[in-house]
Amino acid sequence: MLLNELGEFGVIDRIARYLPNAPSDVIVGIGDDVAVLRTSGPRYLLATCDIQVENVHFVKSLITPYQLGRKIVAINVSDIAAMGGAPMWALVSLGLRPDTPVSFIDELYRGMGEQIQAAGAAIVGGNLSRIHEGAVIDLFLMGEVAPEHLVLRQGAKEGDLVLVTGAPGDSRAGLALTLNPDLAVSEESSRKALDKHLTPTPRLKEGQLLARSGLVHAMMDVSDGLLSDLRHMCAASGVGAEVWTANLPVSAACEEIAGAAGSDCIDWVMTGGEDYELLFTVAPESAPKVQAILRDEVQTSCHIVGRIIPESAGIQLLFPDGQRSAYDQSATGWDHFTAV
Amino acid sequence: MLLNELGEFGVIDRIARYLPNAPSDVIVGIGDDVAVLRTSGPRYLLATCDIQVENVHFVKSLITPYQLGRKIVAINVSDIAAMGGAPMWALVSLGLRPDTPVSFIDELYRGMGEQIQAAGAAIVGGNLSRIHEGAVIDLFLMGEVAPEHLVLRQGAKEGDLVLVTGAPGDSRAGLALTLNPDLAVSEESSRKALDKHLTPTPRLKEGQLLARSGLVHAMMDVSDGLLSDLRHMCAASGVGAEVWTANLPVSAACEEIAGAAGSDCIDWVMTGGEDYELLFTVAPESAPKVQAILRDEVQTSCHIVGRIIPESAGIQLLFPDGQRSAYDQSATGWDHFTAV
Repeated sequence: MLLNELGEFGVIDRIARYLPNAPSDVIVGIGDDVAVLRTSGPRYLLATCDIQVENVHFVKSLITPYQLGRKIVAINVSDIAAMGGAPMWALVSLGLRPDTPVSFIDELYRGMGEQIQAAGAAIVGGNLSRIHEGAVIDLFLMGEVAPEHLVLRQGAKEGDLVLVTGAPGDSRAGLALTLNPDLAVSEESSRKALDKHLTPTPRLKEGQLLARSGLVHAMMDVSDGLLSDLRHMCAASGVGAEVWTANLPVSAACEEIAGAAGSDCIDWVMTGGEDYELLFTVAPESAPKVQAILRDEVQTSCHIVGRIIPESAGIQLLFPDGQRSAYDQSATGWDHFTAV
Repeated sequence: MLLNELGEFGVIDRIARYLPNAPSDVIVGIGDDVAVLRTSGPRYLLATCDIQVENVHFVKSLITPYQLGRKIVAINVSDIAAMGGAPMWALVSLGLRPDTPVSFIDELYRGMGEQIQAAGAAIVGGNLSRIHEGAVIDLFLMGEVAPEHLVLRQGAKEGDLVLVTGAPGDSRAGLALTLNPDLAVSEESSRKALDKHLTPTPRLKEGQLLARSGLVHAMMDVSDGLLSDLRHMCAASGVGAEVWTANLPVSAACEEIAGAAGSDCIDWVMTGGEDYELLFTVAPESAPKVQAILRDEVQTSCHIVGRIIPESAGIQLLFPDGQRSAYDQSATGWDHFTAV
């Protein structure tokens, strides 16, 4: 069997058989975006990594090295943020062709340096190698969280409301613009969507505020797409979810750009990916409280987009006309091997 | 300017300008093999990574995926060991072609799983991506060390003796055999050298014993080659060193294989690389004590191979006939970009 027949998540299940049972100091291990580890200290250690491969995750003609540096850091900070943690230290592994201009490295590090500093963290080491074809950038980020503030993706409860920060779909709109710069859209929409796609801002403060509120039952960041990540959260929690499509936040930029591209903006919101928004669940009575916290403390909007239902019901989309449809798990979300 | 004109260590110096000053919780940062970090706990956190690129670090026809898995873990464990630390948790980033046989992943993880368990650590997460050409395996390893047991590469003092465990050069002999399997050598030498090259055993217990002895002033592992790593240690410590070539340990296997290959075994010992032995310095009166500790506790030999001299004297080779020569820094040791 080949890797593309098994798929990314198939591999993750498969490799577990070669790994001894996790020791007791591993609170969360293989299968999550972030490992949670008990160290000699009172706070848990968080560790995550993300490998970015040229012509798979990025195309040099569509993103500057500076933007790429910022984005790579943002992706990892977002994962730590979604657990309520504080990013602390990063290592960077680079595989680059010998004929890479040094200015590429300069700009990549300028971007990484700015974004890591904005997160209150530091790059403390790494590794550099030749590679024959294509650039590879692998960032490894460590952070800490107090055990009482840790929030995991498992923990969603039947009856919870599902909320999401900001406006997922904007990154997908930005991608559409990078692929087709001639789309006739306003300057403002263009700038907003491109910023969201090329230099996303991780919801760090939001994640920490939500975790410290003590009100959040489950949380993760939206990287594969809202529905795909909701499915991961539901699987980890042993629940199902109903998504109220009429409630999904659609930014003016997303609506305009999707329109110009002849696409459905709701589809982009649900399946776009690379949003780095936070998806989380709370008891119904807590929803106004967390909305107020985010609005008052960091002026960030968050919307109620559905509710948690029994696992047997799966993931359902509820449309404004009252129609329901089951979310076809195979149709959306990004699998690194089975996707185009 | 291009990357291959600047070189690996030139890049490391250069990127520092884009990184804000290290926060006070960073005991050792950019430029060392391992970052040393102050967490919320009494023990320091250690973090290291090593990226292995197909046809740069390994060739699939010359190493099995199982051996590769073991080696990748061993390389990182060796770095933690050289600081006196205990390896704890690893993340693995993989970039693989979609047509990679799943059996490659199975065997890679079987090897990584065995070696990580032998080190008392666990693989707790990672990341998997498509790549268009060549495999990339990047391992991040975290560990812990009590502050009083931490040993760094900086710390060598004038008058110290320089010691090295085991027999550097054996890995180079194994490499010679993988490149030329028809070399006429004994079965025993062949097996020993191939084992050392393909499945090196990191000196974990040795590193911990040396660190806990309180006698070691500076320590690092030999990955780039004995002379090259000694130069790194001397540069970090602000000292020079004299290497007594007559004292260099040469195994029977190394001598036999170098002879068959028409090479100089002393050259392999000094510049071979990938040895994963420990190089360290102690005060002269401590040398017999540390030799006794390693012999009695783990039956590992270690040899006095030189002494620390003033920085102005550089690195010198002292030959049995009394001749001296300055070590030509540019001639040996492995730079990932300027090497062939």
